[in-house]
Amino acid sequence: MNQATAALIVIGNEILSGKVVDTNSSYLAKELRALGVALERILVIPDDVDVIAEAVLDYSQRFRWVFTSGGVGPTHDDVTIAGVAQALGVRVVRHPVLEEQIHKFSSGEVDEARLKLAEVPEGAELIYGDELAFPVLQARNVFILPGIPELFRAKFQALRSRFRSAPFHLRVVYLRAAETALVPYLNATLRAFPGLLLGSYPKWNDPEYHVKVTLESKDQSYVEQALAHLLAQIPPEMVVRTE
Amino acid sequence: MNQATAALIVIGNEILSGKVVDTNSSYLAKELRALGVALERILVIPDDVDVIAEAVLDYSQRFRWVFTSGGVGPTHDDVTIAGVAQALGVRVVRHPVLEEQIHKFSSGEVDEARLKLAEVPEGAELIYGDELAFPVLQARNVFILPGIPELFRAKFQALRSRFRSAPFHLRVVYLRAAETALVPYLNATLRAFPGLLLGSYPKWNDPEYHVKVTLESKDQSYVEQALAHLLAQIPPEMVVRTE
Repeated sequence: MNQATAALIVIGNEILSGKVVDTNSSYLAKELRALGVALERILVIPDDVDVIAEAVLDYSQRFRWVFTSGGVGPTHDDVTIAGVAQALGVRVVRHPVLEEQIHKFSSGEVDEARLKLAEVPEGAELIYGDELAFPVLQARNVFILPGIPELFRAKFQALRSRFRSAPFHLRVVYLRAAETALVPYLNATLRAFPGLLLGSYPKWNDPEYHVKVTLESKDQSYVEQALAHLLAQIPPEMVVRTE
Repeated sequence: MNQATAALIVIGNEILSGKVVDTNSSYLAKELRALGVALERILVIPDDVDVIAEAVLDYSQRFRWVFTSGGVGPTHDDVTIAGVAQALGVRVVRHPVLEEQIHKFSSGEVDEARLKLAEVPEGAELIYGDELAFPVLQARNVFILPGIPELFRAKFQALRSRFRSAPFHLRVVYLRAAETALVPYLNATLRAFPGLLLGSYPKWNDPEYHVKVTLESKDQSYVEQALAHLLAQIPPEMVVRTE
């Protein structure tokens, strides 16, 4: 697992039931790509300890980094900490530093509900950031992030620099042609450049183009050579522009 | 598996790499909820036959209905049909009806790329709809939908009526209070109504409310009783409004 791979597990009945549109996934996908990390899975699951534990166990073994989004508040449906702990085979404990912080922040008595916010999978580390009131929890290779988009983003930004990897180099060709007409050209380029990440995306009802073709690699000159190979085959009148 | 449960598998490197924002998930989540179907998983995976097959096999056994989105065009990265076929242990074959339709629609010669659009997992059924130029593929309990949002929606609408189940009844309470302060009330209502689907969602920077609490059940009077139970406990000054 030397490769820079990641998975995101979104915990949220509110997303599965259509009450809330998840925006953390697309945010993280863009951020990780810019860092050179290959996001291999996005999984949305219910607020269920066993389901969370199964997903975290599976992905933490398959991928280098796992992110969770949601389920970390004080209420009955916030069971992410318990799920991660179960996945990693550790207990849920109150972290003394978090407990102290909660006492400091709270005016008046600190009830059980507030103290639930100090719970962590045993052995978890606290990661601090300049902009963060509350640290990020890391349990082995699992980063536990809150579901509220503003907090999810702020916490990811505090972690961001640790995921920087070799970047992906991307070139894009916009085409006016039926996707089926492009197949022979795409296949020929893929045969010549088998390590190329080549995508073909038809667009519906766009006045400018019909198909967007993306070429990617961590090797910049490989992408440029593959692009030249592709453009040498495609009839020029089909090409709208390249990026 | 008498229960109305479902899972969605989104096949798309373009989503995992942050190039395209997936909107089919939130669309399907809302539609299924309105039909009374519990969406239990949303999984986004790469364009990889083995990964697709693993996910389809798992979910088609766990849930009553499985939907796939994407990966059904003519290019090298369109491998959903092969993945579903592998999951179900059948071959990929050309469907004679689809092949005939492609010949009819195509002016001039029909190449291999076009004929790829006639491929199906062996034994798949074709589902026609009034608004559809091309039928939906159903392989056992798996409905294979295209990723292009306009087509995904049109095809789901053609299927929609077959998923109608007992509806969920939803009530919502908007509150101005710290979520921690609500925990005792929520827990008491959940103890009295253990079958209740109870959600608590803090909202950041909203001038109107701080927490949205959702109460749901397929039994309408149960929800109404649970709502009354909850409102009888919460100090009235915390309640902004109910829906």
